Amino acid sequence: MTLPSDILHLAHELADLSGEMIKRYYRQPFAIDEKADDSPVTIADREAERVMRERINAARPQDGIIGEEHGEENTDAEWVWVLDPIDGTKSFTVGRPLFVTLIGLLHFGKPVLGVINQPITADRWIGGEGVPTTLNGQPVRVSAVDTISAARIGTTGPEYLTNALGVFNQLVAQCRYPIYGGDGFLYAQLASGWLDVVAEEGLKLHDFAALAPVIIGAGGVMTDWQGQPLVLGSAGCVLAAATPALHASLLPAFARLPL
Amino acid sequence: MTLPSDILHLAHELADLSGEMIKRYYRQPFAIDEKADDSPVTIADREAERVMRERINAARPQDGIIGEEHGEENTDAEWVWVLDPIDGTKSFTVGRPLFVTLIGLLHFGKPVLGVINQPITADRWIGGEGVPTTLNGQPVRVSAVDTISAARIGTTGPEYLTNALGVFNQLVAQCRYPIYGGDGFLYAQLASGWLDVVAEEGLKLHDFAALAPVIIGAGGVMTDWQGQPLVLGSAGCVLAAATPALHASLLPAFARLPL
Repeated sequence: MTLPSDILHLAHELADLSGEMIKRYYRQPFAIDEKADDSPVTIADREAERVMRERINAARPQDGIIGEEHGEENTDAEWVWVLDPIDGTKSFTVGRPLFVTLIGLLHFGKPVLGVINQPITADRWIGGEGVPTTLNGQPVRVSAVDTISAARIGTTGPEYLTNALGVFNQLVAQCRYPIYGGDGFLYAQLASGWLDVVAEEGLKLHDFAALAPVIIGAGGVMTDWQGQPLVLGSAGCVLAAATPALHASLLPAFARLPL
Repeated sequence: MTLPSDILHLAHELADLSGEMIKRYYRQPFAIDEKADDSPVTIADREAERVMRERINAARPQDGIIGEEHGEENTDAEWVWVLDPIDGTKSFTVGRPLFVTLIGLLHFGKPVLGVINQPITADRWIGGEGVPTTLNGQPVRVSAVDTISAARIGTTGPEYLTNALGVFNQLVAQCRYPIYGGDGFLYAQLASGWLDVVAEEGLKLHDFAALAPVIIGAGGVMTDWQGQPLVLGSAGCVLAAATPALHASLLPAFARLPL
């Protein structure tokens, strides 16, 4: 697999366009729709996805798109973009610059490139297969932590863990310290070596399609709870760790849980 | 009580000076000391407090200072500054722009002015008695939420709640949604109307001395779990809410807890 030569440029363009749109609405009054799952979804979310889709359609009309807000098109294409314009909509709604735009690229269903973009602080991670992960152009690398006792572990919130809550709380008791909140931003922190473990359940394709490449491009490990690579169709129960040793030491406890 | 005319200017100067110092160290490699309580304390923390103390000593040598890092001086003065250069040291250490610099001012032991400053995103809340709270110069106001079912509630993490964990989890089950992480930033969000309740235990004077004035200056309510104003010597078990009705409805459950 070789990335087409225009792909990286387009990925940056998508992050630029969505970021400009999102900044217009951050901390401004707006009507909050409520989806069936009660998560706040803003005008910014829909508009940011719209501008990204328009750009993909103009630049690479042969590619497919799977978006959190506006659905699927041309998903049997070789290259399929997976878009989550505002991951961490609660962070956005409560005025925290921790939400991120997630842009993933699938090649025949396998995530090969990811962007994690925070438009307010202008922090952009990009990486994947053959693309060493960078933060704003500077190479980043996961930490060398390989024991749970030295690990800083993250998850968005205990309320998002059902099957894994008991296992996660055991890790909290053993770890250096836990960090809560952050959604996709947690995985960017892991890629930069600031966190060592992230465990979550209930992620969607539009989450992990961008996250796994960024982690792997930074030298980390991210799989489902069975240790399998995350691909189109994976259950969104994920374990990401800085080192293979750390990942392997934690996996058995998660592998016993239902997906 | 009338604030001396030079106080607001000095408060902004302290936020500017500490912010410039902190920005030098954010996301840079540095040696992390570990205090007895295991919280990470950085060079930035000590240096930011040092430059604030030097400025206070030069501008208002008659004032007292209580700092998290460098101790107390002249605390029987009429005006005493209370400094927490980096509140949310874990956020700082893991590369999240949610840590804040807290600058409080006591008048005969009573908090009358507070600054919550986030130097990376350049967000500065200031407010207190007779000083309506502003964010970067624009007036802010708490929300009008007066029922727990409509409330967004925050706390830094369940691992910081001991006596109140059961009560807090009952509120999580009833509320609109919970937000975890954030330390002093949570109270700035409450002041801006983005959150409706914050409940925590174990706060220190250098936390609440700045936080309570910002909340009160934005029209909110912040007391200890007995409903008493937070002053020098208060136990740091706090309940902050957007409206008196919301605060009153939640207080009884906390009032039964040990301080």
